[in-house]
Amino acid sequence: MGRLVMKFGGTSMGDIERIRTVAQHVAREVAAGHGVAVVVSAMSGQTDRMVGLCREASAMHDAREYDAVVATGEQVSAGLLAIVLQQQGIAARSWSGWQVPVKTDGVHGSARILDIDATDLRARMEEGQVAVVTGFQGIGPDNRVTTLGRGGSDTSAVALAAALDAQCDIYTDVNGVYTTDPRVVPGARKLDRISYEEMLELASLGAKVLQTRSVELAMVYKVPLQVRSTFEAPDGPNQNSHNGDGPGTIVCDEEDIVEQQVVSGIAYSKDEAQVSLRRVKDKPGVSAAIFGPLAESDISVDMIVQNVSADGETANLTFTVAEKDLPRALGVLEKASEAIGYGEVTHGTGVAKVSVIGVGMRSHAGVASEMFKALAEKGINIQLITTSEIKISVLIDAAYTELAVRVLHSAYGLDG
Amino acid sequence: MGRLVMKFGGTSMGDIERIRTVAQHVAREVAAGHGVAVVVSAMSGQTDRMVGLCREASAMHDAREYDAVVATGEQVSAGLLAIVLQQQGIAARSWSGWQVPVKTDGVHGSARILDIDATDLRARMEEGQVAVVTGFQGIGPDNRVTTLGRGGSDTSAVALAAALDAQCDIYTDVNGVYTTDPRVVPGARKLDRISYEEMLELASLGAKVLQTRSVELAMVYKVPLQVRSTFEAPDGPNQNSHNGDGPGTIVCDEEDIVEQQVVSGIAYSKDEAQVSLRRVKDKPGVSAAIFGPLAESDISVDMIVQNVSADGETANLTFTVAEKDLPRALGVLEKASEAIGYGEVTHGTGVAKVSVIGVGMRSHAGVASEMFKALAEKGINIQLITTSEIKISVLIDAAYTELAVRVLHSAYGLDG
Repeated sequence: MGRLVMKFGGTSMGDIERIRTVAQHVAREVAAGHGVAVVVSAMSGQTDRMVGLCREASAMHDAREYDAVVATGEQVSAGLLAIVLQQQGIAARSWSGWQVPVKTDGVHGSARILDIDATDLRARMEEGQVAVVTGFQGIGPDNRVTTLGRGGSDTSAVALAAALDAQCDIYTDVNGVYTTDPRVVPGARKLDRISYEEMLELASLGAKVLQTRSVELAMVYKVPLQVRSTFEAPDGPNQNSHNGDGPGTIVCDEEDIVEQQVVSGIAYSKDEAQVSLRRVKDKPGVSAAIFGPLAESDISVDMIVQNVSADGETANLTFTVAEKDLPRALGVLEKASEAIGYGEVTHGTGVAKVSVIGVGMRSHAGVASEMFKALAEKGINIQLITTSEIKISVLIDAAYTELAVRVLHSAYGLDG
Repeated sequence: MGRLVMKFGGTSMGDIERIRTVAQHVAREVAAGHGVAVVVSAMSGQTDRMVGLCREASAMHDAREYDAVVATGEQVSAGLLAIVLQQQGIAARSWSGWQVPVKTDGVHGSARILDIDATDLRARMEEGQVAVVTGFQGIGPDNRVTTLGRGGSDTSAVALAAALDAQCDIYTDVNGVYTTDPRVVPGARKLDRISYEEMLELASLGAKVLQTRSVELAMVYKVPLQVRSTFEAPDGPNQNSHNGDGPGTIVCDEEDIVEQQVVSGIAYSKDEAQVSLRRVKDKPGVSAAIFGPLAESDISVDMIVQNVSADGETANLTFTVAEKDLPRALGVLEKASEAIGYGEVTHGTGVAKVSVIGVGMRSHAGVASEMFKALAEKGINIQLITTSEIKISVLIDAAYTELAVRVLHSAYGLDG
């Protein structure tokens, strides 16, 4: 058996009882002969408590000190898991990011991993010791603790798996990636496999199973990733099948998926707002004049569509932002109006984005028209369309979101 | 102005408001031109919380992992104080024990400091940056975090002061060392100066102002130590006098005390129990047979007195232990009775130890007889006497403790 990195989030590490369940999962993989490294998040609530203390200390706190304080959360949970594993007779040792070391750049609060020197860790693992590694953190060029930004533990796990030439199992509160949200479509099916590219589209579309950055990293380093559940009985049947398909969903290269579906899943995101700029002067640099100030104000823009307007000389430009960002976005555009030069701004809320994702659509025509036809049959009006190689997204009235998802799930033959 | 190490305990660091008070003390010393390093304990309650989690994880937890978990407490408070100092416009940076590094031996849970390499710290201090250093911890020979045992932050501070060639101010909830407990003798006076030797006797006698180990270390490295109060207004009068006497009590070499009193203070400790072994066979190794098993059972023995018994062939041996340890001590003696060989065991509770301390008694005769006379005049019976070069201790009925302390305080002219 090879090496395996297991990652557990804050909910899985929530209290000592839950940490015992985590230890059972680890024990199972050790018994199966894997060399195991575990990457852990802080106990749920702990990070928020630390962030609260930093804010109370100063609204404008130093990022270096924030990192020093917040990073203690994972150090606590790593130590506790090591203790529980030892109690169950499993040799284990905790490792802080700086001890491994997980080398990052110096961007405190949202550092990027540069390199993991896993020599020592590997040696201990080869002696049969489970390595419990703090997620979410590393050490910067000036010998100070850095954090990767919230949710960075997935990234830590994948980076460690790459350094150890290991598989990576991400344990969550769901048992895999589904064809769509099971709360909307009861017949949604768990996928046995999904490609990195599709997972990336899903991750950035609100199916918050994995951090986008961790999927990118897994794709680059070809780390076989599995999304699986912490809360299914650790000693239940089929928990130990790492050859071929596992108990969860395996995220892998497109080529490793034998029966690739044309469409793998339907994603949606509500609470979108639409902004249209009419009669924008069609000159070079106008897009930069619009989206530069929005980016500087930390407003994330999602769909962007530009069309020639009726007069043939100016353009109409429409984009979407999160509904909560709409007032700020309008303010930014107002301030930048002279630099941009537009006729008028209109906006609308209560819209949702529904997307169809599948690497198979690269080689299959008609996927888009199938989508438009299915929506039209239910009288759902499409306000905006954007496409990528493996995704088609439409903006519709939010009231029709669930209906649209169900209709599309059926139309592409995804119902279980 | 020279370098100064300031140490603040868990109560002083209890919450963000208190940390702001600490920062005011630091600001005052920085303004006075000192190069300042601050040593901090964990926020009060935090260490207990961490210890509780370790215990819940396993009753028999690994000391290495315990250290990794518990040491996070100081890392949090160091980071928070750095943030608060920065907010007040003072350049500051937190340092964990491993970052300095504070090198210790590998005895996890009660490690000893071997060496502090303060090169980096000194360089930053010379640039005008306040160094906020985690107390109570260091890094062991195998690159793992160690803790010095509870209360070790005093020791951290003194060791750092030695490495930085600095003075060391220990901030506590009292404003100095008193001639005796002011709750017992309202006329007790704060001492301006006290010698290391006297402080050692006081520290081990229940006047829990400073950790014994920190005083030993200060004595060896001749670190000028001051005990002073966190809670007196940081910007009040006389807060800044580091030449000659300070606002607190300075602990220093005997030679640096000009007007040395014969007796410096009266200490007491209640809740003692007395154990007597009668007709112990007077042979080599008998003391080891008695006190070895007690030490192995972690029972701390205080006074020990041995006398030839009436028959001239056996000895009577009496010692004291903490009252709470008495049942265990009797059990241990019972088990070891054959190895020891004694006639009978008697024991008594409700006794107290009262001690007179002063380096001056080395050169003054009559200090002991003065004590016995003063106690006799009040009809207080002495059950046991032990002496050292600078201390005379007597065991008396606990009911007379306060009376004895008051009488002796007067007899040696210590009343204010």
